[in-house]
Amino acid sequence: MLADKYYQAFAAFAGLNMILAICAGVLCALIAPAAAGSGIPEVKAYLNGVDAHSILAPSTLLVKIFGSVFGVAAGFVVGKEGPMVHTGACIANLLGQGGSRKYHLTWKWLRFFKNDRDRRDLITCGAAAGVAVAFRAPVGGVLFALEEAASWWRSALLWRTFFTTAVVAMVLRSLIQFCKSGKCGLFGQGGLIMFNVNSANPSYNTADLLAIMLIGVLGGILGSLYNYLVDKVLRTYSIINERGPAFKILLVIVVSLLTSCCAYGLPWFAACTPCPTDLDVQCPTIGRSGNYKNFQCAEGHYNGLASLFLNTNDDAIRNLFSSTNKNEFHISALFIFFAAVYFLGVITYGIAIPSGLFIPVILAGASYGRLLGRLLGSFASLDVGLFGLLGAASFLGGTMRMTVSLCVILLELTNDLLMLPLMMLVLLISKTVADSFNKGVYDQIVKMKGLPYMEAHAEPYMRQLVASDVCSGPLISFSGVEKVGNILHALRMTRHNGFPVIDEPPFADAPELCGLVLRSHLLVLLNAKKFTKNRVLTRTEYLRMFHAFDFGKAGSGKGLKVEDLDINEEEMEMYVDLHPITNTSPYTVVETMSLAKAAVLFRELGLRHVCVVPKTPGRPPIVGILTRHDFMPEHVLGLYPDIHPHK
Amino acid sequence: MLADKYYQAFAAFAGLNMILAICAGVLCALIAPAAAGSGIPEVKAYLNGVDAHSILAPSTLLVKIFGSVFGVAAGFVVGKEGPMVHTGACIANLLGQGGSRKYHLTWKWLRFFKNDRDRRDLITCGAAAGVAVAFRAPVGGVLFALEEAASWWRSALLWRTFFTTAVVAMVLRSLIQFCKSGKCGLFGQGGLIMFNVNSANPSYNTADLLAIMLIGVLGGILGSLYNYLVDKVLRTYSIINERGPAFKILLVIVVSLLTSCCAYGLPWFAACTPCPTDLDVQCPTIGRSGNYKNFQCAEGHYNGLASLFLNTNDDAIRNLFSSTNKNEFHISALFIFFAAVYFLGVITYGIAIPSGLFIPVILAGASYGRLLGRLLGSFASLDVGLFGLLGAASFLGGTMRMTVSLCVILLELTNDLLMLPLMMLVLLISKTVADSFNKGVYDQIVKMKGLPYMEAHAEPYMRQLVASDVCSGPLISFSGVEKVGNILHALRMTRHNGFPVIDEPPFADAPELCGLVLRSHLLVLLNAKKFTKNRVLTRTEYLRMFHAFDFGKAGSGKGLKVEDLDINEEEMEMYVDLHPITNTSPYTVVETMSLAKAAVLFRELGLRHVCVVPKTPGRPPIVGILTRHDFMPEHVLGLYPDIHPHK
Repeated sequence: MLADKYYQAFAAFAGLNMILAICAGVLCALIAPAAAGSGIPEVKAYLNGVDAHSILAPSTLLVKIFGSVFGVAAGFVVGKEGPMVHTGACIANLLGQGGSRKYHLTWKWLRFFKNDRDRRDLITCGAAAGVAVAFRAPVGGVLFALEEAASWWRSALLWRTFFTTAVVAMVLRSLIQFCKSGKCGLFGQGGLIMFNVNSANPSYNTADLLAIMLIGVLGGILGSLYNYLVDKVLRTYSIINERGPAFKILLVIVVSLLTSCCAYGLPWFAACTPCPTDLDVQCPTIGRSGNYKNFQCAEGHYNGLASLFLNTNDDAIRNLFSSTNKNEFHISALFIFFAAVYFLGVITYGIAIPSGLFIPVILAGASYGRLLGRLLGSFASLDVGLFGLLGAASFLGGTMRMTVSLCVILLELTNDLLMLPLMMLVLLISKTVADSFNKGVYDQIVKMKGLPYMEAHAEPYMRQLVASDVCSGPLISFSGVEKVGNILHALRMTRHNGFPVIDEPPFADAPELCGLVLRSHLLVLLNAKKFTKNRVLTRTEYLRMFHAFDFGKAGSGKGLKVEDLDINEEEMEMYVDLHPITNTSPYTVVETMSLAKAAVLFRELGLRHVCVVPKTPGRPPIVGILTRHDFMPEHVLGLYPDIHPHK
Repeated sequence: MLADKYYQAFAAFAGLNMILAICAGVLCALIAPAAAGSGIPEVKAYLNGVDAHSILAPSTLLVKIFGSVFGVAAGFVVGKEGPMVHTGACIANLLGQGGSRKYHLTWKWLRFFKNDRDRRDLITCGAAAGVAVAFRAPVGGVLFALEEAASWWRSALLWRTFFTTAVVAMVLRSLIQFCKSGKCGLFGQGGLIMFNVNSANPSYNTADLLAIMLIGVLGGILGSLYNYLVDKVLRTYSIINERGPAFKILLVIVVSLLTSCCAYGLPWFAACTPCPTDLDVQCPTIGRSGNYKNFQCAEGHYNGLASLFLNTNDDAIRNLFSSTNKNEFHISALFIFFAAVYFLGVITYGIAIPSGLFIPVILAGASYGRLLGRLLGSFASLDVGLFGLLGAASFLGGTMRMTVSLCVILLELTNDLLMLPLMMLVLLISKTVADSFNKGVYDQIVKMKGLPYMEAHAEPYMRQLVASDVCSGPLISFSGVEKVGNILHALRMTRHNGFPVIDEPPFADAPELCGLVLRSHLLVLLNAKKFTKNRVLTRTEYLRMFHAFDFGKAGSGKGLKVEDLDINEEEMEMYVDLHPITNTSPYTVVETMSLAKAAVLFRELGLRHVCVVPKTPGRPPIVGILTRHDFMPEHVLGLYPDIHPHK
């Protein structure tokens, strides 16, 4: 920064930021809108069984990587952690689909992932790898995948994610070793532990414990307020973003300008502090990143706020966690930084750039914790750096509502095992306090995006209803040997993915439920055109035509569509035997079963369809089919508006 | 130890050991046989739904605590970790039953745990607390409960165990603070981190990685061999133990004598080493526990083997992990110690004392690792203490087959985050190698004890069978309004816990499945004696007589038994309406459903009964009932001996 040319400097700073921001915004708005935001909610929804449009597509992957680089470089208050999780999941998805046919990247052995469960496992591993590499926390990655991302957990999956993150850790370590001399820019910094605060012996007394509880309670309140504000801002932004890419980019520009103003303007309010004399490091720092920034101050002085704002996020966090100089930052500087980061974090999430939530929350939390530590300085004996760490923990607990995984991630970030009991306490308090106000930020975003996420537990009001109460729509069923025209008509007219098959005389004595047939399997069957003129069973004959993998799950957007079928008038009048592709023992519930109980069955077994069968004999053998949408609160409460949702 | 009186010293040593061993053996053999062994397999089986006899009773709790103290004090190669897990589970069970009525410890609010799920959750928390306190590893405790103990996992449970271990960590820390001055004996030692090996900067190269892989492979082989030998020894011991308490105690005496001989005799084979000159600690150590033991050596010399054998287990492990003196132990001393501990560990587990497996495995693994480190000294540059740690990890991985939880427990034991990638690698390799030979040690013990443990996955051969293939025994069902005599007869003649209820005309148009009624509920109903002369519905009338808690799950051994009922001849001819206590929507499967699919339903939802219904209409509305035992490999393969169990 050249002397006195402050306006030019600002113009250069804001201009460069804006150019980078526009790059990120253009990529996101024009090429892959799904790459905007954190990506963790989408991955979470995917692992719950919601395959939203192009959320894990190759284009999303590319935009996520480069958009995230541009976004972080543009100085936005955004993190790279969420995008890294999304990136990991995208790569895993690409592998799981057998590569991308469009980009000529295919492997044959990958066809073993052509089923829902293995593909979901692979994507869970990808998400775990993302966290592992973002925080250099391999065990934290496993626990994040377990606690936040995955909806179904098996011991085999635990062991697979553990393997994945072990490989990540080994690769990461070799790269760090390789980059030790500084030839990879900022990457080599920090080693495997990013923010080492390993303190000699943190002893704490009752006063400290009270202070820590205060941190937890306030952190919980501020965290839930953060969630509330993010939700409101997202709803506002979604109105703007819906108007088109131009508006999206405009929003990015406005936020970028605001961020630049804050980062460049606010340090002017901070007083200059003389450099402490007993320092190991350089003061003031010359160069891009460091501890004591000179900014507008005279020689031998530094500006605390500039050291926080005009720095990489990692260095800012390192400064806030540091315990070497207790009075490094003025109380006013900490307060301004906290307010600015809190505000910028809220308004930045939701614009059309890949934006993680971890870093803004850690920055705000650490400055809040250090601020509180300074304010309570006379009362509590704990170090302000540790207060910063506990503040970050309380904010993370208050917004994301994780416990074990955050605890381990923070442990692996800071290498301070002796702080573990305090960290656990803070996380528990802040999560409990925040849970009494609203839901976790990722759950909120999933809900706001309208993704039909199945909760792990049944809602209380579901106990008042039975399964048949919520079966929606007219039931379309097929006979065991059905006319091709009828099938085609049903496929064209509805968007159902599963149809019950009912055996009627002459194939059975009385109408009985034969099973359930899937739309995707019907399409494969019709495409093969093995029809018969008469209504006869043809079981064994045409099974030889197909290979098991023909019925495997296709990559996203690659399956057969009903428009792809080419069936002529004559064929429409022919018959096809559905028995070979029918699942003859679908999971069923009786119509009088409590909806809550049916929801548990549906969720625990990870089903997509449940057949509802009649209680009394002598009626048609199936009453209806329950799908994911039938369990959604919007659907149920829409049908029964008189039910009180909270009891 | 007085000079030259070596025989008297041995007599005193062995005699005291034997007295303590007999105390532990008598407690176990006479008062609570269920307290013998580790207890982790039993807790694991309980959490899977197997309530073995008196496994969590108050008497077991008391014997476990005192027996474990005596057993460890008697110098056996046993740990206190497994018993602590069992102790935690017992305490949780005592709380969950509303205290013990027998010992006049009851609380009314605890009746909210009168259902399976909440009680199971409580016991999971107890097990987590046990690990947390045994290793001073709160996060490790949560992960142990998740990975090894619990069969069903919900996010609410994660958060509850985390809360439990956070409380444990806080209490533990206050007690350590309180005991800092040494007034609590050995408890205060080590602080929150028991074996602090926090090394400055462990750098490793390719040669080290190869050495570490070798550790992993050999550790896996030795670990699975350990499991194999433990299994063989257990089977032999169970024949001896079945003969009566006297034989049990005799076995304890023999093993105690053998242990004393090893601990006192083997150090004579070790040469005396002159004390290194540049030491901070005393050498040779005078007193009960310490680093350099004098034993028979001259002044200024120490005996390496004595320093390992005649020491507390904790200090021996600390010595093996220490990196201060690379050549502290001779290669021969390490080899003798390894062989002795491996052998003693195998023969000690299974005798009638509470005996954990963690400490023997860690001791054997650490000496093996340090030995390998010495042998590879010229090849690898890593410290021998770290080799010891990795050896312990490889043995733990090879016997117990956990990954994430062991990793975190070892991390919390040693506070060495930079070793994490290596630890993960070793654990993965040893687990993979060992898994190709046999199952984990706890699974083996569960199987050997004949507990009907439901695996998380269905066995491959189950795909060849359908649900109705394995339904066993004649089906006993009741009418909606049934004669008291019939019910009593069925309860007396069978040990079934669930009976289907079938509504017949005049209560339904055709026979239909009304639902499932539980033995325990039937007993409560019969005990209330609200019978009617005629076959009529009485639904609403007598529901008022009961409180919801009357039907709650009673404490173990406290429920009503069929012998407690006092029903006279006249009442036998009367009727009772079963509708109010019938579960009208039990989970059902169709008779043609693959057994594997039914097993998944059964296991995932944690059921005790599944009703098998006919595929075709017009037949009796229920074909049979599947219970846990019908899914056991012994049952299925007994019915179909021709099926190959591995395909």
